[in-house]
Amino acid sequence: MIYLDNAATTMRKPQAVIDAVVGAMGSLGNAGRGAGTGAMGAARVIHECRERVAGLLGCPSADHVAFAPNSTEALNCVINGIVGAGDRVVTTVLEHNSVLRPLNRLAAERGVSVAHAGCDALGRLDMDELSRLVVPGTRAVVVTAASNVTGNVVDVAAVARIAHAAGALCVVDASQAAGLVPIDMAEQGLDVVCFTGHKALMGPQGTGGAAVMPGVDVAPWNVGGTGVHSFDEQQPLGWPTRLEAGTLNGHGLAGLAAGLRFIAENGGVAAMGEHELSMARRLYEGVADVPGVTVYGDWPALELGEASARTGVVALNVSGLDSAEVSDALMDGWDIATRPGAHCAPLMHRALGTERQGIVRLSTSWFTTPEEIDVAIGAIREIAVG
Amino acid sequence: MIYLDNAATTMRKPQAVIDAVVGAMGSLGNAGRGAGTGAMGAARVIHECRERVAGLLGCPSADHVAFAPNSTEALNCVINGIVGAGDRVVTTVLEHNSVLRPLNRLAAERGVSVAHAGCDALGRLDMDELSRLVVPGTRAVVVTAASNVTGNVVDVAAVARIAHAAGALCVVDASQAAGLVPIDMAEQGLDVVCFTGHKALMGPQGTGGAAVMPGVDVAPWNVGGTGVHSFDEQQPLGWPTRLEAGTLNGHGLAGLAAGLRFIAENGGVAAMGEHELSMARRLYEGVADVPGVTVYGDWPALELGEASARTGVVALNVSGLDSAEVSDALMDGWDIATRPGAHCAPLMHRALGTERQGIVRLSTSWFTTPEEIDVAIGAIREIAVG
Repeated sequence: MIYLDNAATTMRKPQAVIDAVVGAMGSLGNAGRGAGTGAMGAARVIHECRERVAGLLGCPSADHVAFAPNSTEALNCVINGIVGAGDRVVTTVLEHNSVLRPLNRLAAERGVSVAHAGCDALGRLDMDELSRLVVPGTRAVVVTAASNVTGNVVDVAAVARIAHAAGALCVVDASQAAGLVPIDMAEQGLDVVCFTGHKALMGPQGTGGAAVMPGVDVAPWNVGGTGVHSFDEQQPLGWPTRLEAGTLNGHGLAGLAAGLRFIAENGGVAAMGEHELSMARRLYEGVADVPGVTVYGDWPALELGEASARTGVVALNVSGLDSAEVSDALMDGWDIATRPGAHCAPLMHRALGTERQGIVRLSTSWFTTPEEIDVAIGAIREIAVG
Repeated sequence: MIYLDNAATTMRKPQAVIDAVVGAMGSLGNAGRGAGTGAMGAARVIHECRERVAGLLGCPSADHVAFAPNSTEALNCVINGIVGAGDRVVTTVLEHNSVLRPLNRLAAERGVSVAHAGCDALGRLDMDELSRLVVPGTRAVVVTAASNVTGNVVDVAAVARIAHAAGALCVVDASQAAGLVPIDMAEQGLDVVCFTGHKALMGPQGTGGAAVMPGVDVAPWNVGGTGVHSFDEQQPLGWPTRLEAGTLNGHGLAGLAAGLRFIAENGGVAAMGEHELSMARRLYEGVADVPGVTVYGDWPALELGEASARTGVVALNVSGLDSAEVSDALMDGWDIATRPGAHCAPLMHRALGTERQGIVRLSTSWFTTPEEIDVAIGAIREIAVG
């Protein structure tokens, strides 16, 4: 199979990640919940993972990296832990439902006002509109670092400046960006970065979390056992315990730590981003001029020559064909896995006019080869031209 | 190492569990989020796991098994999804902080009244007090199926009868019981059972969930992407989607399914429970009469001859020694891993008078051998008698 659905999950993991999970499953106890090498081994693995995530995201304190099973839960935790009844929040039409739905619920149930900055025809965030919407008193700006539909990268440092000028926090959904696009919370002024482990970080499913700048207050979401301060009636508020009730996924985090090591040993985020983008660019250039093929997103950004201008996503449609029909044809005819449909980003589709058709998303990874891309190009040409 | 901290996490997993995770990490896409064998493989593995959990717990519908990363999150989800502002909830002093703290928070923030039924000197739940506390109009009774401190098993069917007589729901924390003690939601009248995968079910960390009887309404906790109904502003309410926002831990659930297969192939819950209890009984009988050793819990229950009278926990103290001191001595002198301290169950310790000393918990698994138990007996004797 040619797997081009890496923006959903990187199906192929480095062998070192698998080996780390296997090792952990044979040796880890429960971190912070026992005496002995098993429990201590778990604590050590988890701490290494925390330090590596902090390093990756430029978070000044490893203890301010709190793990969660995925970025969705991290976003629920952070959004509900920051935004109070009646607050104002600004977000964008680029967002995934993991941002939109927590905010929609707060709007429906707690009187939170939510404004959405729009985008242009290429799916580029309208910074001027964002700037107008972020009025003084806004509690938070919640923004994706890269669209999961178009692969456009957002200038989160600019968003943070706008947020901070109005006294708002800047919360970033880095699900599509972490591991591909340079992120430095301290330098870019990001207050919270939520990430997932199973995409470009090449870790196992069931891993992810939130990195929070020291000084930013996030109320607990899940509460319960922590292995410390058992007699406190409420969740202890030390970091990272406050956001980590219950047994952590030590087995998965061992794999995530290995994924982060793999990235570091192979040139880091810059090399990862460059490879995925070069594969996506090859695909784009092979299909952009095929009659009937529409490619979405900010491809002119590549002309700026920045390696981190885009992620490894190519979003397209073929004539008026339903996106699912095209994905099925790619699978049935060429054994190419892609993702069709709405990608859990309804406002993005509304902005692009693809609500009914959906979009066929092809997304690359570190393991994607030029040969695979060329097969995909041939397949799309054949579907389009017949 | 002699690992006797299985009530925290079963460190040793069946090889089939490890193999299943390895297989999944090389082949699974993102369930419900793509076209192709990867995504379909993930959906298939997750569905198998749902069916096996439903079978294990007597839940009439596999779609009413919703996965979560651990039982803590499942309990947060269920408790917050069932209990509304001003409701009355009855729970017990046997509970873990994963039950107590979500309820304490609701009490502090939403005016929920929470009453705790007590226990006797053996840690046995006071059913008469529970019955008095569950007045008509009570929203839910939340109860553990087995104490994580003493290993006492609770008669959840009797609790359910009391709950239902007052019109209340019966929510069970089966973290310590699932896989060891027979649970049948339909037969026992349990409305919700929360479970974890990484203890007696022998799955990986990062797995667990809630089984909910059809007809019982649980509002969503985490909301976000679901792969279906992307254009709905709020979380879709179909099962199990309503309780499963974000990418599931497919890799871990493949392992959990293998753990459940392993249990089925080795005699089922009855055989598992019997082995763990027989090992715990051997330990109990070897140390109960050692001068200075106090063993907690309802050991007379064994006289009733029921295989499921207790879990594989032996909770003890040695003279006035701090429990951590004893655990450390067991590790340093005999390489035996145990858990000291408060076990995230503050009210249980208050009831047993072990708030300061804590308790040394030794807990067995399917892989525990008589030889290991005999080493532990010798070690405890030596620590006690010197």
